[in-house]
Formats: sequence, C-alpha cells, structure tokens
Amino acid sequence: MPEMPTLADHPFDQAMAMKPLPEPVAGSDAPLAASRSWQGRAHPGYQNMVGPFGGVTAAQALQSVLRHPDRLGEPVALTVNFASALNAETPFRIEATPVRTNRSTQHWTLCMWQVDAHGVEQALLTGSAVTAVRRQTWSAVDAVMPRVPAPQTVPRAVVMGRIEWLKRYDFRLCVGSLPLQWDGAEADSLTQLWLRDDPPRPLDYCSLAACADAFFPRVWRRRNLMTPIGTVSLTVYFHASITELADTGTGYLLGQARAQSFFNGFFDQSAELWNEAGHLLATTHQIVYFKE
Amino acid sequence: MPEMPTLADHPFDQAMAMKPLPEPVAGSDAPLAASRSWQGRAHPGYQNMVGPFGGVTAAQALQSVLRHPDRLGEPVALTVNFASALNAETPFRIEATPVRTNRSTQHWTLCMWQVDAHGVEQALLTGSAVTAVRRQTWSAVDAVMPRVPAPQTVPRAVVMGRIEWLKRYDFRLCVGSLPLQWDGAEADSLTQLWLRDDPPRPLDYCSLAACADAFFPRVWRRRNLMTPIGTVSLTVYFHASITELADTGTGYLLGQARAQSFFNGFFDQSAELWNEAGHLLATTHQIVYFKE
Repeated sequence: MPEMPTLADHPFDQAMAMKPLPEPVAGSDAPLAASRSWQGRAHPGYQNMVGPFGGVTAAQALQSVLRHPDRLGEPVALTVNFASALNAETPFRIEATPVRTNRSTQHWTLCMWQVDAHGVEQALLTGSAVTAVRRQTWSAVDAVMPRVPAPQTVPRAVVMGRIEWLKRYDFRLCVGSLPLQWDGAEADSLTQLWLRDDPPRPLDYCSLAACADAFFPRVWRRRNLMTPIGTVSLTVYFHASITELADTGTGYLLGQARAQSFFNGFFDQSAELWNEAGHLLATTHQIVYFKE
Repeated sequence: MPEMPTLADHPFDQAMAMKPLPEPVAGSDAPLAASRSWQGRAHPGYQNMVGPFGGVTAAQALQSVLRHPDRLGEPVALTVNFASALNAETPFRIEATPVRTNRSTQHWTLCMWQVDAHGVEQALLTGSAVTAVRRQTWSAVDAVMPRVPAPQTVPRAVVMGRIEWLKRYDFRLCVGSLPLQWDGAEADSLTQLWLRDDPPRPLDYCSLAACADAFFPRVWRRRNLMTPIGTVSLTVYFHASITELADTGTGYLLGQARAQSFFNGFFDQSAELWNEAGHLLATTHQIVYFKE
C-alpha cells in the first residue's frame, strides 16, 4: 500500500506554490492599499483540453488572497472571470489587492496577467473576493443533500484519454454521467457525484474552490453533444470555517450540479458541495460559453 | 387616468443619469485599455433603511459599462461587491474598464468611489462584468417557472412605512410574504412574487439588474426575526437579448427566491426572474451578512 504523500509532494500543493514578486514601484498611481503580486504557473498535472483546468486557476487566484499578509478572516465569496486562455508554457503574475478593510469583512480585487508573444502583459483573469472574520450565529441548511449511496459503495469512474486533470480526482458518479453515446438525444442537466483529490489530500479553501469547477459542462449532458465550451465567470460562496474543512479532512465531497438556462451561446450552471457528514461546504455558480 | 410619464421623468432613469468625468491623466500607470469614469449619486426615491437600495447601485454600476463608448455586445454576467455604505448626500465616481476584448466577449472591471469625511476617495463597490455579442444557438430552459395566478388577479402588496424604494415597485406576492408576526417561528425561505417598476417602465438591463436584488432578505422569512443584514456580493446572469427585453416591455416579472445555507453570519440567496410569457430573463445569486 503506497504511503500518503507529504503535502509538498501533492500536485495540488505544487500548483498552489507561488513566488512573491517585488513590491510595486512607490509613487505609481496605485490608489489602493497594499498590493502584492505573485508568480505562478499552470501545473502539467492539471492540464485540460486547451490550457489548465479552470478550477485550479481559480484556486491559484484565491491562494493569492490567502497568502496576503494583510488578510482578515476566511473566504466568504470568490468570483473569477476567465478573460483569455492561460498559456501553460509561461509563468503568470497574480495580484490580490485589499481594496477595503472593514471591522470584520475585507474586499479584494484580483487580476492575473501573462506576457504575450509581443512581450506585452495582458490580463487573463479578473475577479474579486470577500473574506470575513466569522462569528458563531444561528445557522441552518435549506438545500437538501441528495440521497445517494456511500462513496465506498460506488465504483470509481474510469478516466481514459489525455485529460490530465481528470486523473487528479477520484470521481464516483451517482446520477447523470457523461453521455455514453453522443447521439444528440436531449436529457436533463443533473449530475450527482462523489469526488476527492487523488491522492487524497486534506480539504482547504483552495481545493474546495477547485472542486466547485470539477463538474463537466452541463450542456454536454443536456444535449448529448460535445460542443466547445468555456467558463466565462465562476462564483463560489463558502459556508464553512476552518473547523468544517478540518472535519472533512480527506473525505469525499458530494457534488450536485445542474443548469437553469441555455440561451444563445451561454448557459448557467449551479452546484453544491457537501461533506460526508452532511455539512454544505460551498454553493457555486458559473456562466459558460458554448458554441452551437 | 394619469398619463404614462416620459422616460426622463421616471425615477429609475433619473437614478441612471450620470455625468461623464474628465479622462484620466495621460501617463498615469493605467495598464489597461480605455478607462472612463462617471459621476452619479444615490436617488432619494430609492432610499433604503440605511443608504440606497443595493439593486439600484448595482444597476448604476452596470450603466457605467453600458454607456462606455468601447462596449462590445450585451451583458452576460455582472458581479458587484458592496464594500461599504454609500453616502446618499454626496456624489460617487464610478469607473468601468474594458480589461480584455476578445472577438465576441469583453471583460470589465468596475469600481465605485466616494470621498470620505477626510477628503480621501474610498472604494465602496468593486465588481466585474462580461458583455458579449450573442449568436442564435440551440436554447432551452431547465428551471421550472412556478405556477402562480396571473399578476392582474393578485392584490398589490401594501407598502407602509418609510422605505422609499419599496414604493418604486409594484409587488404582488404569491408565496412567502414578509412575516406578519415576527415571532421567531422558523419557516421556509421561499418567496414567489410578481414585480414591476411603478410607474411602469419598459424593462432594460439596468432595471432587470435592480429587480435581481428586490427580494427581501431570506433570513427574515426563514427565522421570522428582523435581524440586521447587508448584501456583500451580488451576481446576475442575463439570459436575454434586447429582443426579449423589448418583448417584456412594461409587463410584470415573476421572481422566485430562496436560500441554501445560513452559516455563521452569512447566507446565500438565489433567484430567478421570468417575464409573463415564460422567458427566464435572469438568474441571480447573492451572499448576505446577517447579525445574530
């Protein structure tokens, strides 16, 4: 039986590793408070069809907030907009800026840049985040956790082909698999599945953000057609503190995803992520471009 | 019978009116493309308990994108983060920047500023938007429009008290009203209602964005307790082109809102907005601070 890898060995931790860049030049017209930037790059282990898996890019964006020395509290909301394809061959620069710090909440803007073929730095991701010091309050979950078999009793999905990032997850599909026959027969857009990192890794905010994007595009299931797609904007709301993440550990997450509208080139996709104990850790929404 | 007011007379149009500000100084370290800023202010007709109704502030943010001379296409996604209370007594500055323009999509960042008591400009709203030139594609709506009585058969909600913005809408509650007795008896978090501007006004993207925030906080209904709340982040996905908005005209929208999680000081709230003909015009999500 193979040993559990140490954290530094895990491909997800390798992907989250970023190098601090020099501070911005004093006197530049930076109207905001402290601004820090980091250099990172796409990890070959999370390669998608074109460029890296967007969930890991979103997680890298969140990581730039979490590593910022002025951060207040834990993530509550994250929005990232995928403006352009990330080049996996060259590093990127990510900048997280605490625009406003209140007594218990903090507002962040995010921007990821990459130098293009002409030597010009271009924005490829924009976004925002909110962190907060949470206080214990009355709490309740209104979303209903789907009733599905325990993950240990569901066979692991067999991942074939050259999509690397799919191999970094242990997926156990309960309802709504990828089409077995791409025959264009319309179906519903619902998927329920268990997932966790492979090799297993204790859950943290970054890996939770990545899981929020780990559902295959709803339009593929809905249409039974594999049309080109690309996530345009992704939002994650976190409903867990460090305690709930620690309680989740390396356990499976139950994910449920479905679409509400497909309209002239864009569809939305909403999902929930529960831990095995039934805590709703995150709710997430995205809007996705699709080509007819 | 009173005449329909002309557009310029409508309080919503007055709220959307913004004055262009001088261009940023050349040579400033603006790494982005063209950047335009506008001066606007809170409209007394949309005053909330503290500061203005957030839906109109979100609409003003969107308006800064729509009025930008370099805009490509129609809104697909909008996210605004409410970083601080807007002072209704002084003007604000809003800046929309087209960070990246692709062949058919365009990515925007947004920031709203206000000069504080010390004469320092402070960010009070951050955000992002995506606009796109839509092409006709296969389309489908998976969300189910609630079956409720026609708006003409539902009595208009009586708005009492001093909350001005509530008087700017014609609300017709079908399911899940504000509690009649604030007795702390827990309920569900669902509301279904018809709404439209009062006086009636042809729907556009800005008024649709405002409607996305027009549901009273889910925690009030869920707990039957009126606790202090504040929206932290709001996202709107648009599933309509100009044609569907024009078809909606001054008709009612059917809105449905509910929460998924209330956890240690923050809850999420998701809603859909249909027109009377059954087109799903927008889906929207927000995360809201609440005080125990």
